[in-house]
Formats: sequence, C-alpha cells, structure tokens
Amino acid sequence: MRMLDLLLKKRSGEEHDLKELEFIANGAASGAIPDYQLTAWLMAAFLNPLSKKETAYFTKAMALSGKKLNLKGLKGGRVDKHSTGGVGDGVSLALAPVAAAAGVIVPMMSGRGLGHTGGTLDKLEAVKGFKVRLSADRVYKQLKATGLSMFGQTAELAPSDKKLYALRDASCTVESLPLIVASILSKKYAEDITGLVMDVKYGSGAFLKDFKRSRELAVALIDTAKLLGIRCVAVLTAMDEPLGLAVGNGIEMEQSIRILRGEKGPADFMEVLEVLSGWMIFLGGKARTPEEGMAKARAVIADGSALEKMRQMVRWQGGDVRVVDDPEKFLPRAKLAAEVKAVKAGYLVKMDARTVGHASVVLGAGRARAEDAVDPGAGIELYKKPGDRLAPGDLIARIYSSDAAKLREGKKMFESALASGSKPPKKEKLIREIIK
Amino acid sequence: MRMLDLLLKKRSGEEHDLKELEFIANGAASGAIPDYQLTAWLMAAFLNPLSKKETAYFTKAMALSGKKLNLKGLKGGRVDKHSTGGVGDGVSLALAPVAAAAGVIVPMMSGRGLGHTGGTLDKLEAVKGFKVRLSADRVYKQLKATGLSMFGQTAELAPSDKKLYALRDASCTVESLPLIVASILSKKYAEDITGLVMDVKYGSGAFLKDFKRSRELAVALIDTAKLLGIRCVAVLTAMDEPLGLAVGNGIEMEQSIRILRGEKGPADFMEVLEVLSGWMIFLGGKARTPEEGMAKARAVIADGSALEKMRQMVRWQGGDVRVVDDPEKFLPRAKLAAEVKAVKAGYLVKMDARTVGHASVVLGAGRARAEDAVDPGAGIELYKKPGDRLAPGDLIARIYSSDAAKLREGKKMFESALASGSKPPKKEKLIREIIK
Repeated sequence: MRMLDLLLKKRSGEEHDLKELEFIANGAASGAIPDYQLTAWLMAAFLNPLSKKETAYFTKAMALSGKKLNLKGLKGGRVDKHSTGGVGDGVSLALAPVAAAAGVIVPMMSGRGLGHTGGTLDKLEAVKGFKVRLSADRVYKQLKATGLSMFGQTAELAPSDKKLYALRDASCTVESLPLIVASILSKKYAEDITGLVMDVKYGSGAFLKDFKRSRELAVALIDTAKLLGIRCVAVLTAMDEPLGLAVGNGIEMEQSIRILRGEKGPADFMEVLEVLSGWMIFLGGKARTPEEGMAKARAVIADGSALEKMRQMVRWQGGDVRVVDDPEKFLPRAKLAAEVKAVKAGYLVKMDARTVGHASVVLGAGRARAEDAVDPGAGIELYKKPGDRLAPGDLIARIYSSDAAKLREGKKMFESALASGSKPPKKEKLIREIIK
Repeated sequence: MRMLDLLLKKRSGEEHDLKELEFIANGAASGAIPDYQLTAWLMAAFLNPLSKKETAYFTKAMALSGKKLNLKGLKGGRVDKHSTGGVGDGVSLALAPVAAAAGVIVPMMSGRGLGHTGGTLDKLEAVKGFKVRLSADRVYKQLKATGLSMFGQTAELAPSDKKLYALRDASCTVESLPLIVASILSKKYAEDITGLVMDVKYGSGAFLKDFKRSRELAVALIDTAKLLGIRCVAVLTAMDEPLGLAVGNGIEMEQSIRILRGEKGPADFMEVLEVLSGWMIFLGGKARTPEEGMAKARAVIADGSALEKMRQMVRWQGGDVRVVDDPEKFLPRAKLAAEVKAVKAGYLVKMDARTVGHASVVLGAGRARAEDAVDPGAGIELYKKPGDRLAPGDLIARIYSSDAAKLREGKKMFESALASGSKPPKKEKLIREIIK
C-alpha cells in the first residue's frame, strides 16, 4: 500500500476501507509515513470528512496502533467518563471514586490542561507524590484490587492518536467532527471499556461554543461508540460560566475531596456529578436505571465509601494520603492572594468561563503551550456565581498566584470576565439534553 | 502573520492577498514554514483552488522568493518557450537557435526528464562538456553576446517553486491547475521575459491526456501570464505518438542538429518547430505576423545562421563544438542495438507515446526517480510512424542500450506500444488549436 494512493483517494472524496485506515494509523505511530503526507491527508479528510463507517474503522485502527489494555479478566462493567473540557470542571475527581465505590470498574484515562481548560492529570498531581504515568500492568493490578485507577495516556496507548493530534494542531485540522470523534474514542476503545459517559460541553468556555455543533459531536460520538460495541450516553452541559466554586489544580482537588467527605458542594457541580455518576453506575450494571444509579451515588458519598476509594487510589498511586483527611492542610496553595469584591449592590449577571479560564492560565494554574509546567497552588476560589445577589464589599473571588505580577494580571483578567446588573440574569438549564 | 491563520483561510475557501502568498512562498523557500504545514496548505489549495488573482499573486510571490534575472539591459524582445512535456519532443533544441538567429533574445530555462518524458537539459548534456548550470551573471553575458542561452533552474531562481514542487509530488497535490500554472510561470516570470510560447500537449504521452483539461491549462496559463504582463500564446499539440523519429538524449540532439544543418526533418517535428518558431519570432518583435516569423525560421535554417547560433551556444557553454559539424560521430550512441521489424504487410496504426516513453526509460534514456542518472547514448530511432505502410521485414525501429537485459526489456516494451492493421489509421490534426 502506498500513502500517495490513499491521499488520492481521500482527495477525491472516496471511502477508505479498514486496511487503509490501519495503514495510516500504524504509519503515523511508527513514523513510516512522513508528517508532510499525514497533514496533507488530514486536510483532505477535513474537507472530505470521514464517513461514519470510516470514523469507526479509524478509531479502531488508532486504538490498535499501540497496546490495547485487556481488562476482560476483571468482573463487572468497565466504565470511563470523557469531558470535552471546561473551566472548573473537576467533576472526574469526585466522580471516579463514587462510581468505583458503587462497584463499577473505573479505568479512567485523562489528559492535561491546555489553553483555557484544566486537565484532570494536573489536578491529581496537586497531591504530593501522586503518579499518573502507570504501566498497563500496574493499571490492571490496581483495578483488580480497588476497581479504580486514574492515569495518563502512555506512549504505548493509541500512539497514532498522539502523533495525529499534534499534527492536527499544527495543520489547522482540529475541528473536524469525525477526526475529533476518532481521537477521543480511540483512547477509550484502547482502554477496553464496556461503557462510556460523555460530558459534551457547549458555551463560551467549551471547545465547541455552539450548542448545535456540540450536539452534532455528541451524536457522532455515540454513533461511533455504538459501532465499536461500547454502551454510552452523552450529557450536554452548559459551560458559559465556571462549574462549581473552584478553578485551579489544588483548589479543585480540595473541592472534590470535601464533597466526598460529605460537605455540601456547589449546586451546579453536584448536579453534574450526580447525573454522570448515575449513568456510570447504570452503564456499569450496578443499577437498573440511571436514577437508581444517582441514589447509589448519594449513598456512597454519605457512607464514606467513595472517600475510601479516593484514599485507596491515592495510596496505590504513591500520593500523600493525608490530603484525604485534611485537604486544606496538605494540598498546595500559592502564597500570594488577592480579593475581588463587589463595588455596588445588584446581581452578578455574568462570569465568562473562557475568560476565567484564561485568567487561571495567567495565574499559573494552566498552560498556554503543551510543554509548560503548572503551579498546583494557583487558581481562583469563587464565592459568588451569576445570579447571586451582591452587596458592596461582598467577596466575589479570592485569587492565588506565586508571582505578584501574574496575580495582578490574572486578577485584572478575572475582573474582565464579570458583569453585574440590577436584575438577576435569566438562568439557562445546566444540563440541556441527554442523548443515549 | 501565522501560517495557521492562512491554513484556516484556505481551508475555509477564502481568498489570500498578495502579502499572504508572499509569506507562504518565502516561508517555503527559507524553510521557515515546516513541510507539514505546506502540504496541508497545498491540499487545502487543491480542494479549494486558487482564484485567477491568487494564481497570479502566487506566481509572482514564488518568482520573487529568489533572485529574478534582470535582462532589461538587453535590446529587443526576450522570449522563452515552455512545453508541458512529451516523448521525442526535442523541439527546443532546434527552436531556441532558430529564434535567436532571427534576432530574438532567448533565455531558455529547461528541466530534466522524469517518468516517461524526456528533458531538454539531459538532451543538451549528451554533448560532451556542455554545462547547463550557469550563474545569472553568466546567462546575462552569454545572452548579450549571442542572444541565446539554455540552462537549468538554479537554487536562486524561484526556490519556493522547487520546494513546493517536491512537496506537491509527495502529497498528491500535483494536478491542481492553478498550482501547475504558478509553478510553470513563476520560473518564467523570474527569467524576466517579455514573451512566452507554450506547447501544451494532450494525448497518451502528455501530462494531461484529455484535450479538454489541457485546453483548460492553456487558458489558465494565458490568463495568468497576461496578468503578469507577459505576451503569450499556447499551441495545443497532440501527443498520442512520439514526435519526430528520435527518442533519447543523444539521438534527439542529433536529429535537431541535422535539421539545423539543412537536412529534411520528420514532417510532424518540422510542423511544430516552424509554428513555435514563427510565434517566438513574432512575440519577440522580429516579425509582423507569426506567418512571417515562420518564413524567417525557414530562412535562418536555410542560410546556416541557426546552426551558427547552436555552435556559439555549445562553445559558450563548454561543449564539444565538433558535434555541430559531425553529430553522428561526436554524439554518444549506446553499444548494444536491436531492431524491431514488421512481421506482415499492412499499416502501422498505433505507436503509443507513453509506452514508448517508458521503454526509453527502461533502456536507460530516462529516469524513474529524480536522482537517477541517464545514459546519453540510449534510446530509439524510429523508421516508421503510424500511418506508414509496412511490408514484412521492414525496419520499424532501432533500439539502443548499454545493457543487454535492459535492451531486451526495452524492446519488448516498445513492441507493446505498437499495433498494425490492414487499413491506415485515421490521422488526427497535430496542432489542434492555437490560443492567444
């Protein structure tokens, strides 16, 4: 097979077969196909989009370009969650232990933050010593012992996706739905899961701002996951303002641990957490309905078993387990802080998610480029959310950074995300649709 | 300016401005834009083709990515010829001296053979010592002294075209009319010519087999050349059978020298030579009509002044001038020969140009890959052409190679190009259309 012939085929809008897509995925992983041919193919596939069949084939081919996990020896449903990314969206940190505590096997592979969105791996690494680079063997052992492991994409797992993702970024071919779907699902397929819950965000802080486009992505994800034999659901969630009251790595970790400790979490965060938990538990075969799953989720938080799962995970992955008992003390917090307060009475009507995300990057909590390091103690604690009443002097947020200049700049940017008014804003639904 | 933004623009089918196309051409030439972004852009430009305006801008930008010749100090019209390539198409070898002898300044930049088509540079190099790598300065001096120089593309001349041509080849984006036009004309624009005669071939041995597509290319070439201020004409020429009676480097050189020496050349070859000469002389301002140019062409052959131009050029470019007086003796001819003869009486009805071209590559006269060397003495002498009567035992061709196995294989392939029948074939017009 020659890449030139495949370029001709895709350029002409013809359909690839499985063997051809395997050739491309394996050639990307091994380096046998040069970058300049891969990007030409990506552009052709952008302008002549992959069909549903091609998308499923390509997903499979990318997953099989490396080592696939083999979790068939574990008893019970194996369910992961994927979020298209948001601001303050640390839901996974609480969700994974909850689903595992309810009896679901949770092999959760996550990514790092980039641009205005945070990443689960960065948040987990706020726990001193916590390791996210695990071998396939180690993941298997941990899942067998505890039912829960949260880890990063290894070089062996869907390596062609890693390569193609970087090239899409560099060739302006990111926003192709079939390529997005194949990228997301190849990693999930390689995890050998039986079920998948997807949180597809829309709004200012989301990867796709437009609801219609996000819905298209959700439908495409579900279509492809089904063709691959994965049971799945997509929850369409608004991301116009940050989720919850924490933005930043250590800060979000603390919020989740407190929720697992039984503290009352922010209403929006809790709504997403419960719905996603319900579905994970249902898809994992531990509840007859998603609603029953939600009830189980509440129960495993209330009886401390979800917190116990978190403790087991932190211990297995080399982290300081004291964070589970005293998160405030053992999670990092940057030394410098500034407060943002209300100037006059009224309502907070806007807190633009994307701008808040960028502010957190400025503070050091996120990264502008993939090779940047993050500051686990930087970020933003929120005290007010859109719709809340403001009196002059009310604390809206406390902002943390290790650097005075960054603190000033981040605070300024955070303030630019806010708007207040004399009337409360019209509140949109947080979860707009659930697609099965 | 960022290449990612330009990729987004072309991906979306928007039009680039001159500055953007300069950014791309200069970035390709300097290496500032990585190959994987260039090929993604090429594929986007393939699927969302450049407009007429963009094509002219891009041609100019590519020409100006390197050093442009400056021939304004020379008196008179400066005219080049471009052929889209054929088999046995050594017309330039006689044409350039003829036009120069008629008083036209002829800076003729040519290429090498690739695939089934030959290249003028390879044919010139069949003359011992002949140099085609000339500096801009040297070209200028030679043109000033003699009015004629035939040379290869230097690294300084339209370097972005050189880079992009290689990437188009490797990314399956060759057959885009605007990109073809920009590639051809950027080199011509960089030559600082005032006129251009284009021989656009169609048929089995042509780059574009289909007449309609070739005509589209001719029209696009003329549109763009006009926007660049170059006077031009395109002659649409059939290339279903080899032109003339010689295929191979030394063999074609010999045929041209003999014509310049006053020998009667093959009818088809002479027709193309005279028409193209007539137009070059007319566009160069040395005749009031192309017809008058044709008469002048015949005159400069008859009085020996075209042969004299050839002699001057060979001397200026370091070649063995004895080839001009005794081409048979001083041009190379491979040692091994084989004859192809008619088996039964009838007519030769077919001699497929592309197959004959491939046979000449097998014999060693051409190259399958750009880095291959060519054998100047290998090739095919034709004694019959389609339409000729055949008696059993009639010599159809004599085939030359330096290698016995190649000779056998090349002969077999040449024979597969032939078909005979009891009736003469319907002859198509050689020059189907002339577009001004």
